Amino acid sequence: MGTGLFLPPFYCPIESAIHPAAERIEREAVAWLDATGIFTDAADRAWNIATHAAEFSCRLAPEGDEERLLLFAMWNHWMFGLDDARLDNSSRPVRAAETVDLSLRMIRCIEAPGSTMLGANPVADALADLVVRTRALTTPVQFQRLAEGARDFLLGVAWQNANIERGVVPPLADFVPGRIADVGGRFDAAFIEIANDIEVPAEQLYADPVRAVTEAAGFIVGCDNDLLSYAKEDRGGGAGQNILDVLMHHHRCSFAAALEQATAVRDRAMTLFLRLREQVAREAGPDLRRYLEGLGHFIAGNIQWSDTAPRYASPRNRHLLPDPLARLNVSLRDTPSDPRTEPLPIPTVAWWWTQLRTTASATAGSAAW
Amino acid sequence: MGTGLFLPPFYCPIESAIHPAAERIEREAVAWLDATGIFTDAADRAWNIATHAAEFSCRLAPEGDEERLLLFAMWNHWMFGLDDARLDNSSRPVRAAETVDLSLRMIRCIEAPGSTMLGANPVADALADLVVRTRALTTPVQFQRLAEGARDFLLGVAWQNANIERGVVPPLADFVPGRIADVGGRFDAAFIEIANDIEVPAEQLYADPVRAVTEAAGFIVGCDNDLLSYAKEDRGGGAGQNILDVLMHHHRCSFAAALEQATAVRDRAMTLFLRLREQVAREAGPDLRRYLEGLGHFIAGNIQWSDTAPRYASPRNRHLLPDPLARLNVSLRDTPSDPRTEPLPIPTVAWWWTQLRTTASATAGSAAW
Repeated sequence: MGTGLFLPPFYCPIESAIHPAAERIEREAVAWLDATGIFTDAADRAWNIATHAAEFSCRLAPEGDEERLLLFAMWNHWMFGLDDARLDNSSRPVRAAETVDLSLRMIRCIEAPGSTMLGANPVADALADLVVRTRALTTPVQFQRLAEGARDFLLGVAWQNANIERGVVPPLADFVPGRIADVGGRFDAAFIEIANDIEVPAEQLYADPVRAVTEAAGFIVGCDNDLLSYAKEDRGGGAGQNILDVLMHHHRCSFAAALEQATAVRDRAMTLFLRLREQVAREAGPDLRRYLEGLGHFIAGNIQWSDTAPRYASPRNRHLLPDPLARLNVSLRDTPSDPRTEPLPIPTVAWWWTQLRTTASATAGSAAW
Repeated sequence: MGTGLFLPPFYCPIESAIHPAAERIEREAVAWLDATGIFTDAADRAWNIATHAAEFSCRLAPEGDEERLLLFAMWNHWMFGLDDARLDNSSRPVRAAETVDLSLRMIRCIEAPGSTMLGANPVADALADLVVRTRALTTPVQFQRLAEGARDFLLGVAWQNANIERGVVPPLADFVPGRIADVGGRFDAAFIEIANDIEVPAEQLYADPVRAVTEAAGFIVGCDNDLLSYAKEDRGGGAGQNILDVLMHHHRCSFAAALEQATAVRDRAMTLFLRLREQVAREAGPDLRRYLEGLGHFIAGNIQWSDTAPRYASPRNRHLLPDPLARLNVSLRDTPSDPRTEPLPIPTVAWWWTQLRTTASATAGSAAW
């Protein structure tokens, strides 16, 4: 089975757009990357550039501020470098204790500039530089949300590594919240605000329906990434920490059956996302509205970006160097593979559906607040 | 050396007060605890009650709302139960992987009611009950801050457990931010808001000077707890994860010397706390002012409460059952043991001092935002 050949069409009735300055942003991000001195090996450098981190960033906020998108691109290059070097399990298992230690140090470097808690080395110096630049361009609230997003992300990564360490393939209901954390959706969501220079009022951002929309977007992106990166991780390389392995393991089913089930679950989450987002947008102020649009760009952009990013389209486990012409040949569809609108039978996320005003259970659920 | 006999006087020029309904709150909290069915063993139950969790809660917000303080007391009884049963290393080492797994599950139960991610058992059911009650009494923003506080706390606990697993006694500069997280100060700070029914505007709560005051309070409480609970943990029982062990290990010094150094560090943090809190309060609105007062109650209340709580005064490792008459015989002092006002030479927290407007470096530091 060739890279990407097995991929079903993705249900995504949102068009992805890209910031017009994407090419310039990419050049500047790579120039920054080179100046950091993180990469001493030419192949490592080539593979980091092959993440197309700037393109991903520029698809998150196609009308965002160029300087802030450059910052996001730099963060993403840095995070991909960290992911591949320190957090990812495909080459060697990383113990939870190591991940937790790195997490606390990284969070401290973010929350307390000058703390040097990652030591003195190019990776740490680059993070310190990112933090100084980010504080200069953000409000305290925007920055706090970024820090909380990072903590959420790192706990998710640690959890996946803890599962691998203990040989645990989590059941779907446990896997989903772990994946929502691990995909870093709240970190990216914080950058929707930063890049567009908006600040959603806290009482709106943390209201249940908006929390549900944010989580659903993260889950969809995580699911899509599980499918789009499956070849990259080697079949089973993720050691059970992706939705296909989870379904094959717990439902004792074939890869094809797991793919169909994963797509159905993901498409039902997409239907929920679209309906709930529309409901919230109807009464939203300008910043919340822009945030909700950004979540759509996050989902649509992730698919488009993965299609041509050599990180996924010509993965390193199968290619000596990135192939700039490789494609996953992603296709889209306008309707969900599973059209059902009732809540997924997954207790950890079933509450998303109770936020919908048009269902009977929704009214009761929302009234709790 | 008898329990508490070695304790130096605590520099704390803030008077501790207790909510007038403390006794009733304790009775109701214990009634709730009994109804949960968490404790089947009479000794375990007695030791949980011996935490005097309600007293601790009622000292955090002496003028708070009774219903909300009862809620806080219930949370604290539950957390102490969890701490002793699942998180604490004194009886058996807990691997970081286990702590991380528990953390992600607990956070999910907090963020998504009905998720049942801790299974079906009295401990999980009690948490679910707490979450429902808390959501009913809080605004979405108050609740979000509580959830972020829990995540911060659990990452700190996981980090300490990761250190023990790897045999690491962290140097002081690393230990301090870990202890600030692990003591759960942001969780308690969230309850200052809930108990007093206030909501500090986000742009004030996350401004650097207020973040620094919050962190400093957590550090002081963590330090004090390290001293007040040293007998409880057995000498060395904390396996290096308290400030006395950290100083003895890294400075190759005696217990007495470590105690003197720890007190000096802690007193300098207290001086900073008092000065910075006064500076912030001068221009604070009513909710922020009340929050700042609450941080003072947190510090002062922690010392008073520990003095008579059998959890510390007649610790379980030395007593079959809690002794209600036991006292640590804590004493106070009005001046710091080390009167210096310059920043501590600890890079992870030196930024606190740059928030002071009266020092030269402060102005430059504050201007960054």
